[in-house]
Amino acid sequence: MMRKNKKISCAILIIGNEILSGRTRDQNVSFLASWLNLNLGIHIAEVRIVPDIEKEIIKSVLDLSKKFNYVITTGGIGPTHDDITSKSIAKAFKKKYLYNTEALNILKKYYGNKINDPRKKMAKMPENSKLIYNPSSAAPGFIIKNVICLPGVPLILKSMVHNLKKYLRPGAKIFSSSINCQTVESKIAKGLGLIQKKYKRSVEIGSYPFFRLGKIGVSIVIRSSKKSNLQSCHKDIIRVIKNKKINIIKGV
Amino acid sequence: MMRKNKKISCAILIIGNEILSGRTRDQNVSFLASWLNLNLGIHIAEVRIVPDIEKEIIKSVLDLSKKFNYVITTGGIGPTHDDITSKSIAKAFKKKYLYNTEALNILKKYYGNKINDPRKKMAKMPENSKLIYNPSSAAPGFIIKNVICLPGVPLILKSMVHNLKKYLRPGAKIFSSSINCQTVESKIAKGLGLIQKKYKRSVEIGSYPFFRLGKIGVSIVIRSSKKSNLQSCHKDIIRVIKNKKINIIKGV
Repeated sequence: MMRKNKKISCAILIIGNEILSGRTRDQNVSFLASWLNLNLGIHIAEVRIVPDIEKEIIKSVLDLSKKFNYVITTGGIGPTHDDITSKSIAKAFKKKYLYNTEALNILKKYYGNKINDPRKKMAKMPENSKLIYNPSSAAPGFIIKNVICLPGVPLILKSMVHNLKKYLRPGAKIFSSSINCQTVESKIAKGLGLIQKKYKRSVEIGSYPFFRLGKIGVSIVIRSSKKSNLQSCHKDIIRVIKNKKINIIKGV
Repeated sequence: MMRKNKKISCAILIIGNEILSGRTRDQNVSFLASWLNLNLGIHIAEVRIVPDIEKEIIKSVLDLSKKFNYVITTGGIGPTHDDITSKSIAKAFKKKYLYNTEALNILKKYYGNKINDPRKKMAKMPENSKLIYNPSSAAPGFIIKNVICLPGVPLILKSMVHNLKKYLRPGAKIFSSSINCQTVESKIAKGLGLIQKKYKRSVEIGSYPFFRLGKIGVSIVIRSSKKSNLQSCHKDIIRVIKNKKINIIKGV
């Protein structure tokens, strides 16, 4: 696979009252972000969570699809009244909202004589969508323009992502490494700030305090599309930490 | 406490590359959403996750603060170079970014002779901000206009929320109940759709498939600011489920 040395950006749009109410904790952002970077060199540039309200979905889909290379939506493509993602996206792009013949055949085959209207509804989508097959519960996702619609249930979403690969243009993979040390942020802030200045935009340095297993520490995470920059930045940070006589914690 | 029978909306703006990269899974949305509804009757209407980039923070803060009663930001108020929330919000509102005297005194008292420039930086914020005290690690959050800035570390954020109460106008509490049953969504979709039509906007009915403990089921969650509507809607749903001879699962 040719991988262009170029940043490819993607937004995630989570559609679901259950996430906004606090009832359900989202699990898809961290999975998709890791999977997309590892497999396709695509980075998540923004995430939005919006309620099951048509005009909110339309507005966010249009905003994000203009701003980024891709948008992945999660949730709202099931059989019930609160599943309004497909219809909203059809409206957003001024496409007809109708049965996709291939999707309908998949559902008829899967459900046999137990097919009914709510199940058929899962085959309705914007005209000219391409399907993303679903090996776990049949009802496919779809892609229309640069917007990809996946279900919200994490197990089902995970089973579908490899069927997504063929539709996405890969970008430059981001390499990362992390250094965990027994200190507080303010002790290394000045040193890290200077190193960040040295590498400007070629390496992104993040600093995250943690409290784990009774230990206080800082996790320094560095990310770059260039391995050589990453390695030399890593060495610079180690030097700062050793100069300050700070312990590096392994296996955290 | 007087609680007006009115919807009060809040957005959450998560600022942090570590969430977008998939390295860290957000824990604050579900906590804040539950806490705000339970204690103040405030509902989360939208969430955005943006990177540590000034112009992105400014744009989202301005968008969300116009659209909703409150905005809570999490992350980016620590001592390191990647903590740019306070400065960005000062720019967004065209306020001076300077030391808050009270915050500086708190930090001087807490750190004693171990105070240094990165630690002092945590006292810099938009002019005329009011402080939100931090009982776990001293560095305060702040509120400016309708925007509240809290740290991203969940343990610290949780310790601060009760100091936030006095700044927020309470709204109508949302009551909710849920019914878990052993079925698939498409069997109850029609019935639920009709009940949703009956209650229009007075009750919000959500339907969420689950796979837990080897069981397949659907969780029906209903939410309303009126307890009587909630109860009567609950009864209607139970009737649909019993008519279909579907088992209700307790304790899921």
